[in-house]
Amino acid sequence: MNAAFPPLSNDRFLRALKRQPVDQTPVWIMRQAGRYLPEYRATRARAGSFMDLCQAPELACEVTLQPLARFPLDAAILFSDILTIPDAMGLGLSFAEGEGPRLARPLRSRADIDALGVPDIASSLRYVTDAVTLIRRELHGQVPLIGFSGSPWTLACYMIEGSGSDHFARAKSLLWDDPQSAHQLLDLLARTVTAYLAAQIAAGAQAVMIFDTWGGALSVAHYREFSLRYLSQIAQSLPRGEGDARVPLIVFSKGCAHSLEQQADCGADGVGLDWTIDLASARARVGDRVALQGNVDPVVLYSSEAAVRAEGRRAVQAFGPHPGHVFNLGHGIHPGVAPERLGALIDSVHAESRALFSAQKGAS
Amino acid sequence: MNAAFPPLSNDRFLRALKRQPVDQTPVWIMRQAGRYLPEYRATRARAGSFMDLCQAPELACEVTLQPLARFPLDAAILFSDILTIPDAMGLGLSFAEGEGPRLARPLRSRADIDALGVPDIASSLRYVTDAVTLIRRELHGQVPLIGFSGSPWTLACYMIEGSGSDHFARAKSLLWDDPQSAHQLLDLLARTVTAYLAAQIAAGAQAVMIFDTWGGALSVAHYREFSLRYLSQIAQSLPRGEGDARVPLIVFSKGCAHSLEQQADCGADGVGLDWTIDLASARARVGDRVALQGNVDPVVLYSSEAAVRAEGRRAVQAFGPHPGHVFNLGHGIHPGVAPERLGALIDSVHAESRALFSAQKGAS
Repeated sequence: MNAAFPPLSNDRFLRALKRQPVDQTPVWIMRQAGRYLPEYRATRARAGSFMDLCQAPELACEVTLQPLARFPLDAAILFSDILTIPDAMGLGLSFAEGEGPRLARPLRSRADIDALGVPDIASSLRYVTDAVTLIRRELHGQVPLIGFSGSPWTLACYMIEGSGSDHFARAKSLLWDDPQSAHQLLDLLARTVTAYLAAQIAAGAQAVMIFDTWGGALSVAHYREFSLRYLSQIAQSLPRGEGDARVPLIVFSKGCAHSLEQQADCGADGVGLDWTIDLASARARVGDRVALQGNVDPVVLYSSEAAVRAEGRRAVQAFGPHPGHVFNLGHGIHPGVAPERLGALIDSVHAESRALFSAQKGAS
Repeated sequence: MNAAFPPLSNDRFLRALKRQPVDQTPVWIMRQAGRYLPEYRATRARAGSFMDLCQAPELACEVTLQPLARFPLDAAILFSDILTIPDAMGLGLSFAEGEGPRLARPLRSRADIDALGVPDIASSLRYVTDAVTLIRRELHGQVPLIGFSGSPWTLACYMIEGSGSDHFARAKSLLWDDPQSAHQLLDLLARTVTAYLAAQIAAGAQAVMIFDTWGGALSVAHYREFSLRYLSQIAQSLPRGEGDARVPLIVFSKGCAHSLEQQADCGADGVGLDWTIDLASARARVGDRVALQGNVDPVVLYSSEAAVRAEGRRAVQAFGPHPGHVFNLGHGIHPGVAPERLGALIDSVHAESRALFSAQKGAS
């Protein structure tokens, strides 16, 4: 199927994930298609609910492409939600206006967990794979397309709580009180995420990412046993092709820099970082084993253009002249940010890294 | 004044902070006087508002002593709020039912910051020092009394935002856009916290702790420049006495294990830990330089008694047979916890550590 897609003209992002040299550091931004863009808000208003937007491939494609029309981003990311899997499992996802996600039928017992199975991706998540194929076609090879999923642990958090939560007390209590049921659920989710990402790759995704938004709610020991273990399982079992055609995988456990070395060894090509780790020390800890993606605090985008540009330069210098850096924020871009600030940030990273890499070339 | 207080019969907590051997690991729990206790809820209902409870020394004393009547805790902590300082500075603190704190007059400009001064602790925070003296007297030397304050950065967060916040975008933007004003505010707050803790010590506090609840919202570089720097300033300037009478200081920056070594060198006697760091590796990183306090995930207290006891034993074994461990949770105890679970946790830590220390004595 991939043969039908146009050739890729900007492969910086994929090269960086493979730790190959690039002319400038690739940039993409978590939630780059989102509420900070007036054109997104206009499409969103037309779509109806947030889920209506996710489930209409044409609209998902439209918003995915919007930031690329404004900014020289080096990757596109599928517009979707991390909770499509629980929805496909029958838990009933909805988004109340101004609130977070709700699942109508959260898991409340061992019987609820026993009743779950890997959903039929081809039918229940067809709207996602259709969107991937459409976006890939509409990108015309401009930049690579990233597919994604929530991590098993993060999906389990929502499936057990039924919504976001301050402390995830129900979800975490299961780990202490009934670790066997927890592992049963997480293994099922890992197999589902694997099938889901494989379907996105088959549909045209050129890289895939797993968002472990709530890994940082766990103790170090629980993170490794109940979250990272299943990221590894997915990394080992996901068919990603060979050689140059191999589809890179990025894992991002927010708030889990305590286990950076273990993440680097899980089988992923890239590891996401939030801003609670210094980029230079992260690079020192993992060396060339994986690419690193992140890690600027998204709040800087509320500041002056000068502060924003300084932060972009700082990140490039902190990582240094090694291959393997994908610039990003350490969390999704905030809805209140002025789009021009993002433009300044991207420009500062591109310019600073071009200068750094040319100076290095000149010196060598 | 201290001469008037009865002698201390349980000094495990103070000995552990001085890295001296103890017969069993001392335990106290953040928010041990709190909503999980029915007797607290009864006093709270009688008091009126939360601030009425904080501002009536007899009632603050009553709730401070309640957990000690139930559990063999090794320290008491003043019942108060971290935002008494902004209130004393004229920002107008209140707590709406079921919500967090609100400041009626948040800082909105450089002029607002310029208008602030160190408040007169003796008058504006007399209700706190009166409570300290009363509690110390009513403790009859049973266990030491801990005084506390919010950290400069954490106070600044609330003073700028006017309330809690998901991202502290206003407070953090000031650090990028006007670092000079930020330092002016933080220096003022550091001098105020120093005077406030000194007044609590003069009134009878036998240890003091600084809660840096929002240090973890910052990048590593910003944490060190805008939070830790002012913890050091307080640690260096706070008069704490000499020799055996020296009053220990604990600093706790939640979510900042990235800078554990730097915290250990800030001049404090003890460093608080949340559960995103392994206790054994924390101890390996700081050695004998400081005592460590923490770090169990408070959510375990929603689990079975067996799970709770296992977690207490695990913490004792993770720290090992060295002096310098104060057992605590990594965050305040949650309101929904059954008090018996806390009893089981305390018992497991005491029993496991007694066994560990006796075995070690027998072996040496």
